[in-house]
This record gives sequence, C-alpha cells and structure tokens, in this order.
Amino acid sequence: MIRLVYDFGDPLPQGTEERALLGGKGAGLAQMVRLGLPVPPGFTITTEACRHVRAASGRWPDGLWDEVLAALGRLEQRTGRRFGAGPSPLLLSVRSGARASMPGMMDTVLNLGLSEPCVEHLARESSNRRFALDARRRFIEMYADVVMGVAREHFERALADRKAALGRPSMADAELPASALEDLVRVYLDIVRAHARRPLPEDPLEQLRGAIDAVFASWDNPRAVRYRRMHGLPDDWGTAVNVQAMVFGNLGDDSGSGVAFTRNPSTGEPHLYGEYLPDAQGEDVVAGIRTPRPLAAAAAAPGREHESLERAMPAAYAELQRLAQALERHFRDVQDIEFTIERGKLYLLQTRAAKRTARAAVRIAVDLVREGLRSPQQAIEIVDAAALEQLLHARLPDPDTLATRGVRPIAIGLPASPGAAVGRIVLDADEAERRAAEGIDVVLVRRETSPEDIHGMKAARGILTATGGMTSHAAVVARGLGKCCVAGCATLHVDYEARTVTARTDAGQTVVLRPGDVVSLDGTTGRVYAGEVPVEAAASLPELDELMRWADASRRLKVYANADTPRQARMARSLGAEGIGLCRTEHMFFSEERVLAVRCMVLAPTDAARAHWLERIEPVQREDFAGILEAMDGLPVVIRLLDWPLHEFLPREERELEAVASALGSRAEGVRATARSLEEINPMLGHRGVRLGLTHPEIYRMQVRAIARAAAALRRRGLDPRPHIMLPVVALGTELRAAREIVVDQLEAVWREEGIRLEVPIGTMIELPRACLAAAELAPHADFFSFGTNDLTQTTLGISRDDAGRFLPAYLGALRLLTVDPFVRLDETGVGELVRIALDRGKSARPSLVAGLCGEHGGEPGSIDFCERARLDYVSCSPPRLPVARLAAAQAALRAGAGTSPQA
Amino acid sequence: MIRLVYDFGDPLPQGTEERALLGGKGAGLAQMVRLGLPVPPGFTITTEACRHVRAASGRWPDGLWDEVLAALGRLEQRTGRRFGAGPSPLLLSVRSGARASMPGMMDTVLNLGLSEPCVEHLARESSNRRFALDARRRFIEMYADVVMGVAREHFERALADRKAALGRPSMADAELPASALEDLVRVYLDIVRAHARRPLPEDPLEQLRGAIDAVFASWDNPRAVRYRRMHGLPDDWGTAVNVQAMVFGNLGDDSGSGVAFTRNPSTGEPHLYGEYLPDAQGEDVVAGIRTPRPLAAAAAAPGREHESLERAMPAAYAELQRLAQALERHFRDVQDIEFTIERGKLYLLQTRAAKRTARAAVRIAVDLVREGLRSPQQAIEIVDAAALEQLLHARLPDPDTLATRGVRPIAIGLPASPGAAVGRIVLDADEAERRAAEGIDVVLVRRETSPEDIHGMKAARGILTATGGMTSHAAVVARGLGKCCVAGCATLHVDYEARTVTARTDAGQTVVLRPGDVVSLDGTTGRVYAGEVPVEAAASLPELDELMRWADASRRLKVYANADTPRQARMARSLGAEGIGLCRTEHMFFSEERVLAVRCMVLAPTDAARAHWLERIEPVQREDFAGILEAMDGLPVVIRLLDWPLHEFLPREERELEAVASALGSRAEGVRATARSLEEINPMLGHRGVRLGLTHPEIYRMQVRAIARAAAALRRRGLDPRPHIMLPVVALGTELRAAREIVVDQLEAVWREEGIRLEVPIGTMIELPRACLAAAELAPHADFFSFGTNDLTQTTLGISRDDAGRFLPAYLGALRLLTVDPFVRLDETGVGELVRIALDRGKSARPSLVAGLCGEHGGEPGSIDFCERARLDYVSCSPPRLPVARLAAAQAALRAGAGTSPQA
Repeated sequence: MIRLVYDFGDPLPQGTEERALLGGKGAGLAQMVRLGLPVPPGFTITTEACRHVRAASGRWPDGLWDEVLAALGRLEQRTGRRFGAGPSPLLLSVRSGARASMPGMMDTVLNLGLSEPCVEHLARESSNRRFALDARRRFIEMYADVVMGVAREHFERALADRKAALGRPSMADAELPASALEDLVRVYLDIVRAHARRPLPEDPLEQLRGAIDAVFASWDNPRAVRYRRMHGLPDDWGTAVNVQAMVFGNLGDDSGSGVAFTRNPSTGEPHLYGEYLPDAQGEDVVAGIRTPRPLAAAAAAPGREHESLERAMPAAYAELQRLAQALERHFRDVQDIEFTIERGKLYLLQTRAAKRTARAAVRIAVDLVREGLRSPQQAIEIVDAAALEQLLHARLPDPDTLATRGVRPIAIGLPASPGAAVGRIVLDADEAERRAAEGIDVVLVRRETSPEDIHGMKAARGILTATGGMTSHAAVVARGLGKCCVAGCATLHVDYEARTVTARTDAGQTVVLRPGDVVSLDGTTGRVYAGEVPVEAAASLPELDELMRWADASRRLKVYANADTPRQARMARSLGAEGIGLCRTEHMFFSEERVLAVRCMVLAPTDAARAHWLERIEPVQREDFAGILEAMDGLPVVIRLLDWPLHEFLPREERELEAVASALGSRAEGVRATARSLEEINPMLGHRGVRLGLTHPEIYRMQVRAIARAAAALRRRGLDPRPHIMLPVVALGTELRAAREIVVDQLEAVWREEGIRLEVPIGTMIELPRACLAAAELAPHADFFSFGTNDLTQTTLGISRDDAGRFLPAYLGALRLLTVDPFVRLDETGVGELVRIALDRGKSARPSLVAGLCGEHGGEPGSIDFCERARLDYVSCSPPRLPVARLAAAQAALRAGAGTSPQA
Repeated sequence: MIRLVYDFGDPLPQGTEERALLGGKGAGLAQMVRLGLPVPPGFTITTEACRHVRAASGRWPDGLWDEVLAALGRLEQRTGRRFGAGPSPLLLSVRSGARASMPGMMDTVLNLGLSEPCVEHLARESSNRRFALDARRRFIEMYADVVMGVAREHFERALADRKAALGRPSMADAELPASALEDLVRVYLDIVRAHARRPLPEDPLEQLRGAIDAVFASWDNPRAVRYRRMHGLPDDWGTAVNVQAMVFGNLGDDSGSGVAFTRNPSTGEPHLYGEYLPDAQGEDVVAGIRTPRPLAAAAAAPGREHESLERAMPAAYAELQRLAQALERHFRDVQDIEFTIERGKLYLLQTRAAKRTARAAVRIAVDLVREGLRSPQQAIEIVDAAALEQLLHARLPDPDTLATRGVRPIAIGLPASPGAAVGRIVLDADEAERRAAEGIDVVLVRRETSPEDIHGMKAARGILTATGGMTSHAAVVARGLGKCCVAGCATLHVDYEARTVTARTDAGQTVVLRPGDVVSLDGTTGRVYAGEVPVEAAASLPELDELMRWADASRRLKVYANADTPRQARMARSLGAEGIGLCRTEHMFFSEERVLAVRCMVLAPTDAARAHWLERIEPVQREDFAGILEAMDGLPVVIRLLDWPLHEFLPREERELEAVASALGSRAEGVRATARSLEEINPMLGHRGVRLGLTHPEIYRMQVRAIARAAAALRRRGLDPRPHIMLPVVALGTELRAAREIVVDQLEAVWREEGIRLEVPIGTMIELPRACLAAAELAPHADFFSFGTNDLTQTTLGISRDDAGRFLPAYLGALRLLTVDPFVRLDETGVGELVRIALDRGKSARPSLVAGLCGEHGGEPGSIDFCERARLDYVSCSPPRLPVARLAAAQAALRAGAGTSPQA
C-alpha cells in the first residue's frame, strides 16, 4: 500500500518529487525540519490522498485514517501533549498546500481540538483565561465557516452586537474582557446549531476528520478553480493537508506573528523585509484589522522605530535574520516566511519562494549570481519570463488588485496594443486633435477607426473601439504608433448621434458615458474602466541587460521581432532583436496620406488604371523598406508581401468614396458597385495573400520592385541590407511555385536594371492546415517556413479571433472547457501537431529549410518552450515582448537540456 | 535504352500498361492488328518519348529519330511503297493519341510525304490527277496550319476567291477542276512562304519530323490543357504519336469514310449506328460541310434508303457489321470505330470505347450482361457514375454543347440546387406569385432571399441570387423545395429601384435585363443564360434499377442521404438511401411561419423570454422530426443539432425588425442594437454549432426534447424510429463531453416522462482540423464520427466557399494551379490526410467507432473512392446523387478488391 501520511522531515521514497507529493507548504516544512530549524512538529497528508478522495467522490482510501491516527500519536509523543485533552492539550492547525502556491484560495482551520473541556486546561497552562476563551471563540468561528458552511457574517454580527452592548462599538477584539468572551462562545455555539442544524462536534478526532475533509474539498471551490484557470494549473494535482501543532503568538507582549521576506519583493533590495503584529495570531496579520508593524527599525516611520521587531524583541529579530539567511542560502532564492513568536521563542511556520514584481525578480536574480548563490543559468530559471513585458510599458495595476479595491472594468475588449491610457472620451478624430492641442489627455472612442482617423489616433493617449479584431485598423495602427489600444469591445455601444458610449457590464448594469468623461484603458488585458485609474510608469532597470546577456548565452532559438515601421525596427533592435521575422507590408498602406492611392489601386476600373496607382504607391513602399532595412542593417528582415483582402481598404464613408471616384475620374455609382462586389462573407478565408498575388500579380511585382530597389540603394551606400521575401496564405505547392516565379522574375529584372545583385531568400508563411500537411509539396519552393500561428490557430480550431469574444471567455471561465486561451498559448494538440508534421515533411523534402514562428505565440513562454522542443530555428514577437522571448527561449533551452517540461 | 517506337501489334515488355504507353488510339490499333483486322500498317511513338521531349524543352532523346527511321523502313517494306517517292509513294498520317480520349483537342497531319514530285506518281498510280492535286492541296493547308502556324483562314480565303473567279462561289470543293487545283497549290505555297517566312519543306523526312514535333507540342496547347483541367487528367501523361500508312476514301464512288458505333450511343439500342460520306476523307465527315449519310438503310429518311452504306456498298457494310461485332466482343464494350473504304476495300483506322449518354450507358451495361458479354460486376465498371445524376433532373444541354451553338452564359454563380429553369424575371416574391398564378413561368431574381420570400420561391421555376453561398437561405430553401437555384452570382447587380439586373460577362460585356425578360438557369453548373435555352427532361429508365441492384450487391460502403424535410426523406428512401446521414435542423427554422418565433428567440432580451419562444418552436420541430423519422422508419436518421450562427436569423429589413420588436414587446432600437451586436466578421469561424449549444444550452435541450418526444410518439404507434444525435463544430474533447452531457440528461428526462426508452447514439461532426488531430480526445464521447468535408475543406485550405468565386475559377482555369475543385472532389493531400489521421486516432481510442462522410463529396465518385480506400463505413449525399453514390461505391469496392486506382 502506498503511504499517504508523512511526518515533517520524513524521508520520501526514492525518486519522489517532494513538492508534487507534499505540496509546496509541506515540502517547505519538511526541508526546514531537515535543516534543524525551529518548526512546530506535524505531518503532511499527501496530494495522492486528495486525488484518491476526489476520484472516490469523497470517500477516504482504506488505511488513510489509521495513518493519520498513527501520525497524531507520534505528534503527541513528540510534543508531550494530548490532542484536545488536558492537562497539556495539543491543538492543531490544518492547512491546505498545493504543488504550486495558490495563496488564500483554499481553506485552513486553526486551534483544532479546542473543545469545551479543553478550554480550562489551556487557560491553566497559559495562565491566561482570556487567551483560552479567545482561542475557543476563534476556533468555533473558523470551524463553523470552513467545515460546516456557516457564514462568517453571523459571528461578526454577534461580536459587533456584544461590543455595542458594552457601549464601545469600535473596541478592538483584544480588548474584549474574558466575561464577554465567555458569553460570545455560548452565542457562537447557538449560531452554529441554528445555521448548521447540528451542534459543533466536541470530539477532537471528529473535528480533525472534518477539517481534513474540508481542506480536500476546498481544492474544488470556485475560487480555487478560477485561480487554476487563470494560471494554467491542472485540476488533477489535488492539495496536500498539513497538520501541525499550534503555537501561539497571542500570549502577550512577548509573543507575536508575522511575515518576513528575505529581500524586498517589490524592489529586490537585499535586506529582511516584512511586518508583524505583537500579541497576535498569524491570521490577524493577514486580516488587516490592526496595522502591522515593520520588522526592521530602518523601515519604521521616523520616531516610531520602537514599534519595529528589531527594537521590540531584538533577540527574536536577530534569530529571524539568521534563519532567513539560512533559508535563502539553502533554497538559493528569496523566501517568504511565516513566523510566530511564542513567549519569546521564534517558530517558523512556512517558507516558500517569494512572489515578486518583475522588477524585483530581475534584480534578485542578478544579485544571487553576484553573491555566488546561483550560476547565471540557475538565475535565469527563477525569473518569470512573461512578467518582463510589464517592465517596458506604463501599465494599470492588475485586474485582481483593482478588484480588491472595488474597481471593476465596465467592459473587456481585445488587448490590441499594450500599455495604459487615461483620458477624456472624444468621439471623433478632429475633436481628439483639438482637445489634445489644448493640453487635455483624450481617449479616442470609435465604433471602428479608418485611415481618416489617424491624426486623432496620434493625438490621443489611447484608442478604444467597439468592433474589429486584433488585426483591425485600430489595432494595427495603434501598435504601429506604440499607443495603448483596446479593440472589439462588443458590449460597448457607440452612438455618434446621441454622443453616448454605453457599456453593458458583466453584472448586467448599464453604464452611459459621454464625451469629456474620463476612462482608463488597460491595453495589456483589454480592460476598460470608467474614471481614472492611476498608471504605473515603465521601469528602467540596469540589471535587465545583464540578465539578458546570460539568457542570450543560454538559448538556441534565435529571437526576431515583428515590426512594420522603421520606428518599430529601431525599437526592436535596441531590445535585442536578431532580425525581423515579420514585416507586414499592408500596414504601411494604412497611413492617411497613402490610403487614397491604395483605394484607387483597389477600385481601379482597368488594369492600366491599377498600374498607374501602383506606380504612385511604389516610391512610398520603397522608402518604408529602405528605413526598415537600414535600421536592421546586417540582420535579416522577412518581408511578407500583401496579405490582406483588398476590401479592408474600401472606403467606408460617402465622402471617402467620392474622393476615390474623383481621383479615378469615375462615377461614384460605379465605384460603389465595385466596392460592394469586393465585400466578403468570411474575409479571413477569402481573396487574400498569395491568392491576390496570383490573380493580381502587378501588386506583388510592385512590392518586390520596391524591396529590391530599396536594398540596392542601401547596398550602394555600403550598407548590408538582408531582405527576405515571404508569401502568405499558401495552401498549394502550385501556388508557391507560381508566386515564387513572379518574385524571382521581378528580382532579376531589378538586379539587371541596377547592376547589383543580392541574395534574397524566398519563403512562405505556414498558416493553413493544408500547408502543414502538404509541406513536402511546398518545401522545394521555399527557402524558409514561418509559422503564422495566429491564422493557423484560427483555421485549425475554426475560431475567428475577431468573433471569439462571444464564447471563448465562457470556455475559459464558467464552462471550464479550456484552461488557456489558444490565441495566447499555442494549442499543442492541434496547432502544435500540425507544426510538427510540417517541419517533419518540410525538412525531409529540403533538409536546409529554415523554420520559425511569427504569430503572437512567439512572445509567450509556454509556446516558446514548444518551439524549442519542436526544434524550430527562431521565434518572432512584438518588440515589447523581446525580453520575454529571449529569457523564455533560454529557459526552454535549459529545460530541454535537463529533460524537464515547463509545467513542472 | 528504353524502346520508344513500336510497330502496331508489336508485343510490349512484360507488365506494361498498353494504354499508358501507346495512348488510347495506339493501343486500339495494336489490338486490332493482333486480331487480324484490316488496319493500314504503321507504328506508335510512345508517350514516354513525349515526356522526354517535354522535360528537355523540345529536344529529342538520343536514338528516337533512328528508331523512327527504322520503323519507317519496315513500313515501306510491308507496304511495298516508298515514303514520299515514286513510283508507288507511301503517304502517312501522323496523329496524336493520349491515354484518355481527348477528342479534337490535339493535332493531326494527313497525306504526309506528298511533296511536289510525288503528286504525279500519285496521279499516275490512282489514275486520278484531280485526286492527287486535291490531296496535295489538303496536305499543304494542314501542314502549314499544324506545323508552321499559318492560320487556315488564309487558305480558305484563297479557295473562296478561286471559286468566285470561276463564277460559282458556292461550288463544292469536290467540283473544283484539276486546273483550278493546280493553281491553288501554287497560291497555297505562296501563302506559306508569305506567312511562315519560309517555304513548305519538300523533304518527306523533314515533314515527318515536323509533324511529330507538332503533335508532341499539341499536348500543351491551351485547348488540350483546358480539357485536362475540366476532366481532371494529369498534365504529365503526354501523348503518343501514331504514324500510319494513308488509305483514301476519296478515290471515287466505290470509296468513302465514316464513323460507326456498335450500338446507338444516345439510347443504347443494340444496332450498328453511324454515318459515312462517299468519296471523302475522314476529315470531311468531321468537318460537316457535306451532310453525311446513314450506315443502315433503316436509319435513312423514307425514300432515301439508297443513300445508306447498307444499300450503296452492301459488301463493305456487311464486312463493317461483322468487324464491329468482333470488336465489341473483344473489348466487351460499345466501340466507336473510324473506317475508310478505298475502292471497295474496308479499312479500320481507329477503335475506342464509345462515349455515350448516361441513359445509353445504363442500357448498354445491362444489355451486355444479358448478352453474356460481361458479368454484373464488369458491367458496373463501364458506367460513368457521375453522369447518372443527370438522369434524375430536367437539365440544360451542357455548357460546351451550348458554346458550340454560340450560346454563352451571361453569369456563373454557385450551383446551389440542381435542375434547370426557364422563365421570366421577377424581382419580388409577391410578383412571382401573381405572375405564376397567371400561368407564366417566372424566375425569382433577388440580391439575396429571406424567409419573407418563400411564397415567391415556391411559385417560381427557379431562383437566382447575387450574393450568398451554398448554404445561404436561397440555396437551402431551394434544395428543400427541389427547385433549381443559382446563388451568389457576384457579377450580377440587382437594382430594385431601377428594376434592372445587370450582368458583366467574362468577355467584358454588360447585359442589362428587366422584369419580363426570359432567363435560363442551369442549377447543376451554376450557369445563367439570357433568353430561352431548351430544357431536356428527366429520364425514366427501367434498366437503372437492375444496375443499382448489382451495384448494391458489390459495395461495402453504406449510402445515406442528406435530407432536411419529410419530402426529401421520402425521395431519399425511394432512391435507395439506407438512412439519413445528415438532417440539418436549422433549415427547418427558415420557413416563413416559423422565422418570427426563431428571431424572437435569438433576440430575446432575457433568458425567460428566450425560453418562452423556444417553447413555441418546439412543437414545430417535433412535427418535423416525426415526419422524417416516419419516412425513414427502421433506418438511422442522423440529426445534427443547430449548427448555424444565430445572426443568420437576424431580421434584415426594417419591417421585419419591427415585427420582432412588437412580438417581444421591446423597443425597435434595443432590438436593433442586439441584432447589431450579433453580427460576425467571419461567421464561418464564429459562434455556431456546439459553441452555441454550450453557451445557450436551452436551444439544444429544446431540440433534443423535440427529437425524443417525436421518436417516443412513433414508437407508441408501433414504428421503429432510429434517431441519432450529432453535435457540430466540435474542436475540443471537453466541448463534446459537456454537450453530450446536456443531450444525455435531456434524453433521460424525456424517457422518464414518456415511460419509453430508445437507444439514441450520440456522435459528432468532424469538420475542423483540430477535431481530426484530437480525435483520440473526442472518440470516448462519440458513438460515431461524421466527416463534414464541406467545412473541413474550408478550414483546412482556408477557403471560404462563399468567397472563393474571385480566385478559385482562375486557379482552375488560366492559372492552372488546381486540376479539380476541392469542393467538388475531396483534396486527398490535405483534407484526406486529416480524415485518415482522425480515423486512425479515433478508432484506436474507440474500436467500435462508426465513421461516415456527409459533405457534398459524399456524392462524388472520386471522393467516394477515397472513402472506400480510407475504410469509412458510409457516405451520405443529396438525394439526387444517390444512384451516383451507390454505383461509385460499388466501383470503388471493385477497384479496392482489384488493387487499382480510379485514375487508371
């Protein structure tokens, strides 16, 4: 039979992963015991037991109870106390503890065993009857709440009533006299009977069993489930249960409880950091009723140094400092320690790796290396790569933090361009420009934007749209401008005539905003808040460069950036991009001064007219390419030829249409009919990419000419431009062969004309399932494959990202069908499998094939880990994600070397 | 070295496929020679040679010319004549001949070797100087056209001028006197020199080489390429070249040329059928300048029996009859024979399996079995399964036939519902009803249709729309009504105000039609013609039943039908469906009287309101299901729960919206806002299918209740209803598990309430690439898989069928990127691979899994062959395709048994 209970510090069977079996808390306790640190003794019921119980719908596996009783016996022996009985009663805490920290998500019961007769024993032993009664009161409330399902508010009301009866409604709990506590215990027991329809069990063993069951069950409470969803943790881990002898920080002024970090978790500064409360149990520190005091005298407010632990209990402080350092040295990472001081004696109740801000994470990692505690490679492992992005943007506090302050979004849209923006609503671009010129911060709110709005977008702090997806005009332009943007907020109704912006919130409320009202946008999460939410500025962090150098030395994957403008290219280069993996040429078409020419090209009534307008566009494109190639001098720049359907460029308003008609010298009617005939039902699956390039080869020819001429001009100036040409939306080998021919012929023509010749690799975007399956057909015509996993995810899963808002949130939330958004982390079962198939078949047909990934997954650590395992050559991500990608690539390489997986 | 030239009848190397190496014509000649039939001797240059020449850009492989010369030497010896030289000159024909017949697509040169000095030899030998000069004239014209690229019109003009100069512009060629011919030969030679800028080569060997080169090259002429595209033939087969001694049918009244079919190719009647011309070469019969005469006296017009070959040359006729029978017996199939009679002696120049109408094919197959020439299984092989569909519909002549009559479509849309319709244009439904009531045939032309149009659609002969795809309202309703429909004619502009229908043709013309003008629709090909095109009625054919019985006995695949209404179900059953493989429930929602309730359900402001409207819909659905289950009593009926996005049901016009608002008791504004918020950018990839079923489970619950209650009621009446429930658009195992739970719970609830319990298998549509890759996740929750290859093709290739019109025709046509439309024949590389992966993984996870295919590919022979090879359990197709599918399934099973592939 498998052993399901281990005393703290007991050796585990060979090969056991300690955290997996004992949970994080249990593993920490075990290690502290082994290090000989002062830990109240106890035992851990394994996660394996929890999994058994869950699988059996609550029934305990044979033998578990016997193991618990045996461990309890050993505990009694070790402490010289008897569980729930005099003369020296043993009281217990029962706490959850999963493999990964899920702070506050699951349940805890303290003071277990404190039944009626035991109170007097405890009073006698502690010489403190008030303490014993207060412990009893706390136990009843906690047990009733956690195990018996009686809401805490009943007890809180009774307590408040009692204080009111005493004439001091605002008195502190600690001031309650013993007599009042005695009364309250009786009232509490009545409350339990009334609401639970049964009395509080007085048998300590029954209490223990109930508490353990409650902890098991709390693994599946909605809060915990939601937390796991949010953090991508599996449901089948289960929680361990830690049963531990109680120690008491509320036995007077020589006692106390607190939390200590071995370094500052906000800044990473290397000194003991934390807070404590004298004469208090640990829960009082967390509850936030009394104001905790600092540990270090230096951290206290001037003149209040005496309140610090350092001054109040210097011996305990010194001991804590010593033990904290020992723990940090042992774990070689910053620890978050819970401690209790019982009558001057320090006990450690828990230790775990400290949560920290991205800024602190970077500094700590670098410091640990400098202090010789970790090698650079080991330092890389302890930084959360995904969090690095926040260092580069101004940002709003995260949604959970805001929620605790009662600040909830009025709408959630697509996180179209990261950053934060706070400003007054304006509904049109001209107004945006006007108000901005007056020095007012504005947020431009539109149903959707069009190239006519660009001056307003430039003037605004942020952009908010009701329709359109991650590749809509608003999103693309905002990213190009580096502006915060939330797009496709489907629950938002923008009424230009009534001049209102109406949001229907999740809670079913309707919020009506008007121009001039302030909104705050979180472009990183897509959240929209009414009113002003304070913005946290972007960090500047010298240690980051050091960390990045170590990461760069450890990774195999190259890291490129997605950049469409010279500005973005320069930013990418400064953030360490080794090339541009995706330069989207259609984005260049959106700028205000070009869109008329592009529209005329699209709507041209004849081939000759189209050729004329293409000629007008070419110099502009050439300039774009020249700027980007110059910024990336000596590095590869993968330029994707036009991908988008022409109808994206159609004029939307009457005056735009008339401008086009007049430029074309056509009747507006005819232009309107042409425009209407270009509308598509499913543009994602429509006439785009190479399909357009083949039916209208003049467009690709123009683009290739612009690229080649730009490169030739730079070469003539002595630079080293390295353009690559990429063909999008390819499904067939014949398509790629034909399109490649067009590109090659046009390149040849330019080289002849310029008297210069550059090697220009030609490859294809792999973004359709068929392209993956037919990779052997494509590879002979492709120097490289670049997996466009945004579109590949859309087609493989059959989900339009622009339309997913109506069901994907429910899938990730209430319906629990998905643990992570497949547009955020690459779906390995579907999309990943296709990537593997394509690589396998592509490389068989052409061993020299270079392969990378340029979807947004290229900046997400879990997906980057997949890219490492699949042996891709590079990932390409948005510039602000470059540090994330560089670090994640290093972590993935180290894991691949060690043979571990990212979840572990 | 591989041998590249074979004399007719030479044995081939072991294992060679004769038709593949020698082409159809060469193989036929070889076999006739081996049978000892009177064939002018000659040799065949293999297709292998052609492939060599193509690959080497026209250069001949080493040794080929030597082989040709050697064969020529043997031919001279056998005939006792000398090529292009006196006294008995050997003249040659050089003809193409590919593996599959491509009639008239490639080139031929006759009378080769007839150089200047040879004319006199020929004149002397034939004692007919006029004949020799005419042969020379014909040779010059043909050689100049085919080999030297001089257009025929120059020669035709010279000939006409000559006749005019003789004062008889309309004289027959045969009446031209020798002197005129002598002049013409000189003029012709001048024409050649003028237009080809070089003289006609007089060296016979040079002529031969030029003619062979021309035949090789003609494999790649645009006509031939187009033909191969149309018929799905590969480009890399190449053509063989047949070089044969000339015989002459134009040596006087005891000579002639003709074509004979061993049975009537239109009706299949078993008698010699065909026509001939006395004193004529074969090309004169084809050219159609003189009216050919019948072979049999019985086929001649009364009083003109003497013109028949039977009366004019009774010996030759008897010989022809005897040889025709021998050939039919040898090939065990109807033969199409070319013959020439030279001075009373019959020669056979070619034999091949005769092209025949579907009606004839069926009769002939059955007759050949009755006559003991073929077994039923062998008879199945010689019927073109795809052609059977035309037997069940009225139809227009096929587009090629119409094109030869100068009738060209004004527009091509989607073949949304097969059949033919001719009628006067009406632009609205009320008018359609009014005019139809007056006895006028009308075609309803709309931009798109909506449920308000249904009375007009019922009244019309056919429906034509400018927008919308194969699953648009118009298409779905028309198929339900069995009406011909062409949908999504993007080049059509319907202007309701101006009351015009404007078509822009491929040729760039603009055609404006008005109400009252006649149009003809071909719902089978999607073509629209201005004016009246005569309709061919549907056939009634007793032999078909016999053939179907044989097919049913030979096939392994079950054949189901796609049917959405009791009417379609009854039709399906009468056409042999063994079940319904796809019953689309949303189609039931479209009917006029239901759409208000459906719209109210979709736009309901609260869950309670939605529940109310669902209750109103349920009895209607129950009635639908009862009707279908009753029609299919004892057979499986796979009912797909709602698949489509809700927004398909949104009101489009103001009055529709107001009706909904009034029914809901809401303000129109609010309803409009809700409707707007339901619009999707890519509905194909949107909130549909199981996604809707999971976020709005009340809809699926209502449908399941309706199915279960309908089935229970039938069971109570003693019937045997067999509903299956299918969940669409599934991508994730979790989706399927959750949706299955909803279905199972609802079924259980009905069984409890009804006191009856039926086994209802629950399965899933496999229509997304991820579903295929994750089949092992899905199979545990699915009793069956049904491959929805329409949507699977759209997602795998990333092509929206509704939007493909702008590039897919170019891919299939001018760009030569695809040989067959992947929506017509299943794309084996992409979609087929996914089907195989899904089957493999699904069956591994659940060996009892039943798997079928229910996309439109289920009625296409090539795709059915794939289904047989992939070992699916069934295919499901539209009812009119059932005979096609049954026969194709049998052919596929026979091929699988024989290990051959469908292309061979």
